Amino acid sequence: MNNSVTGASAPETPCVVIDLEAVNANIIRMAAAIQKTGVALRPHAKTHKLPEMAQRQLMAGAAGITVAKIAEAEAMAAGGIRDIFVAYPIVAESKLARAAKLAKDGVRLVIGADSLEGARRISEAAVRHGVDLEVRLEIESGLKRTGVEPLDAAALARDIAALPGIRLTGIFTYRGAMLGGSGTTDLRAAGHEEGELMVRAAEAIRAAGVSISDVSVGSSPTALYAAEIDGITEVRPGTYIYQDAMQAAFGLCSLEECAGTVLATVVSRPAPDRIVIDGGSKTFATDVQPDKAPLHLRGFGRVVSDPNAVFERMNEEHGVIAVDPSSGYRVGDVIAIVPNHICSTVNLHSHVYLRHANGELVKTTVAARGLLE
Amino acid sequence: MNNSVTGASAPETPCVVIDLEAVNANIIRMAAAIQKTGVALRPHAKTHKLPEMAQRQLMAGAAGITVAKIAEAEAMAAGGIRDIFVAYPIVAESKLARAAKLAKDGVRLVIGADSLEGARRISEAAVRHGVDLEVRLEIESGLKRTGVEPLDAAALARDIAALPGIRLTGIFTYRGAMLGGSGTTDLRAAGHEEGELMVRAAEAIRAAGVSISDVSVGSSPTALYAAEIDGITEVRPGTYIYQDAMQAAFGLCSLEECAGTVLATVVSRPAPDRIVIDGGSKTFATDVQPDKAPLHLRGFGRVVSDPNAVFERMNEEHGVIAVDPSSGYRVGDVIAIVPNHICSTVNLHSHVYLRHANGELVKTTVAARGLLE
Repeated sequence: MNNSVTGASAPETPCVVIDLEAVNANIIRMAAAIQKTGVALRPHAKTHKLPEMAQRQLMAGAAGITVAKIAEAEAMAAGGIRDIFVAYPIVAESKLARAAKLAKDGVRLVIGADSLEGARRISEAAVRHGVDLEVRLEIESGLKRTGVEPLDAAALARDIAALPGIRLTGIFTYRGAMLGGSGTTDLRAAGHEEGELMVRAAEAIRAAGVSISDVSVGSSPTALYAAEIDGITEVRPGTYIYQDAMQAAFGLCSLEECAGTVLATVVSRPAPDRIVIDGGSKTFATDVQPDKAPLHLRGFGRVVSDPNAVFERMNEEHGVIAVDPSSGYRVGDVIAIVPNHICSTVNLHSHVYLRHANGELVKTTVAARGLLE
Repeated sequence: MNNSVTGASAPETPCVVIDLEAVNANIIRMAAAIQKTGVALRPHAKTHKLPEMAQRQLMAGAAGITVAKIAEAEAMAAGGIRDIFVAYPIVAESKLARAAKLAKDGVRLVIGADSLEGARRISEAAVRHGVDLEVRLEIESGLKRTGVEPLDAAALARDIAALPGIRLTGIFTYRGAMLGGSGTTDLRAAGHEEGELMVRAAEAIRAAGVSISDVSVGSSPTALYAAEIDGITEVRPGTYIYQDAMQAAFGLCSLEECAGTVLATVVSRPAPDRIVIDGGSKTFATDVQPDKAPLHLRGFGRVVSDPNAVFERMNEEHGVIAVDPSSGYRVGDVIAIVPNHICSTVNLHSHVYLRHANGELVKTTVAARGLLE
C-alpha cells in the first residue's frame, strides 16, 4: 500500500484528511438502511479510489464494488476485490482484452454496454479470448449521457443476448439528483421515478424473451428511495462513504458527518474581509460550481469552523475566502474545509491522510487515482 | 525520467498528447518577441510541470523558471534547473526549511512575500538555517487575491528589507486577463495597466530607500504588452508553451498551434445529435467554465476536426458533445480535443505522451504533477 506512518503532528498543507470514525459510521448507516429494503448494495469506488475502503464496504455487507474504468477494476482486483461491475460502456479492443484477462483470472467482472455496436465489440473480444463476458445494458433515465432509450431497450437487449460470448444478466442506469435546469431536490420523487422506469424496462426486456436478473440503480442521494421500488435488485451509491458539501446541501448529512476535509494554510490576509489559502483548483475540484441549480451551493466548499465564510474564488494555487472583517484569521493559521465534491477532489490528490481514532495520521497513496486509460 | 517508449501506435484513451514541434515553435516565438523588448523571460512551469520542458525554455534564452510551490521548486531543481522563483507567499515553517535547503544546495531561489507577518517567518527561517533568502514583494494589481495594495507597498518593503536574513530584490504581480465581471479582452490595455502600476510601485519603493532591481509581471495574454513599459525587467508567461482553447479565444494562437490535445474515444452515440466520449472531469479541467465573461468560451474544449461540435457537459468519466445529426461519428472513433485550460488539464494526468517529429509517442511521467505540499 506504500503507506508511511506519521505521528499525530500536522501534515504539510494543502492535503486531504479522511476521518476513519466518520467513514465507518457512514458505511454502517448506508449498509443498514439498504439491507432493510432487501436490495443488494454495490458501492461505487470512485469516491475513495482505495481497495482498503472497498474492503470495509464489503465487510459491512456490500455485495460487490462498482468502478467506471477497466484500470480501476484492475486496481481493485489487485487490492483483493473479486466482484466488480464496470458501470461504463467499454468499447476499445485493448480495454476489452484487459477485461477478458480479469475474467479469466477469476474475478466476477460485469461490464456495461449501451449499443449494439459496443456489444458486438465485447462479443468479438470474448470469442477471441475464449471467455464469456457478463454484460449489463445501460438504460437512459433522464441524464442524457450514455444509455439506450427505455422504449428501445427490449429490442436492443434481444439483439445483444443473441451475440456469442456475452451473458446479458441485467440492466443499469445512473440518474443522480442533479438533472440540469429541470433538476429537483425532491430525492424521494427522483429515486422512485428512476426505480419505476427501470422496472418497466426490465419487464419489457423479459417480455421479449430475455431473462435478466439484475436491475441496478441509484446514487447516494437517490439510492434509498430507488430501493423502495419492487423489482429493483441493487443500488450503487458512492459519495456516502465520505460525504461532502453537496450531500450536506441535499440534507443527506451534516457537515460533521463529512469524513473528508481539506486542510489549508492561510498564506495572506490582504484585506480584513479576505483571506487567501494555499489551495486552489489543484486542491479542490471545480466540477461542482457554486450558485448553480438545483442546489445553489454557496462557494467552493464550507469552512468547518466558520459558517459565515464564503469560499468565493480559486486559481490553481490560491483559494480566496470572504470572511467577517472582525474574524481573527492570521497568516499561518490552518483551517479545514469540506469540499463541494469529494470524489473529484480526492482524484486531484496523489495521497490522503487517514485519521485513526487515536488521532494518528497515516499517509496513504490513492491507489486508483487518475486512472484514465 | 521514468519514460517508457511506445511505437507510433495509438495509446489508450483518454490521454494527453503534446506535440513537440508545436512546443518548439511556441517557445521560440515567445522568446523572440520578449527578447526584442529587452526584458527577461522567466516562464511559469505550471503549464508543463516537466523539467525537460523547462530546459527547452532555458535553451531558448529564458533567464530562469517560475513555480508556485516549494515542492515544484524541488522537482525542478531535481531536474537540473538552478534559477527558480516561487511566485507565492511561503509562510509555513516546514516549507521555509525546504526553501533554505534548496538555497544552501546552490539553487538561486527567490520566494514571494506579501505581508510583514509572512516576511518575518521567512526571516526567522533564514536566521535559523543560516542562509540569506532572496525575496520579492507581491503587489496587488486588480485580481484581489494575494498581494499588498500598491499604496502600502513602499512602507511594507522598507519593513521587510530591514529584517535579518532577507534580501528584498524585487516586486512581482499577477494580473492575467480574466478579471471577473469587469474583465477585458483588450490585452494591450491590460498589459500596459499592469506594467505601469508596477513601475509606479517600484519607484515608490526606491524613493523610500529600498533598492530593488526586479519588476516582474505578466501572463501569456499580457506579457508582450506589459514588457513594453519602461522599467519592467521580467515577464512570467506560462500557458504559451502549449496554448489552449482559452488562449485561442484571446486571439493569441490558432487551434493548430495548440501543442496539447486530449485524445478520447467515442463510447456511445445514443442519439444522432449526441456523442459521449471516455473523458470527463477527471480528464478535462473544469476551472475554466464555458459561457463566462469575458471570453464566453463555447463548451469545455474544441474538437479539432469538427468546429461545429459543442462539448456541452461532463461527469467524471463522461464527456457529452452535441454534434450535427448528419455527422459520421461511430462508436470506437478516436477524436482530438483542445482543452479550455491546458495547465489544470495536465495536472489531472499522471503522464502525457510526447509526440516527436517522426510521429513516435513517448509516454512521460509528469514529474511535478499535483505537487501540493
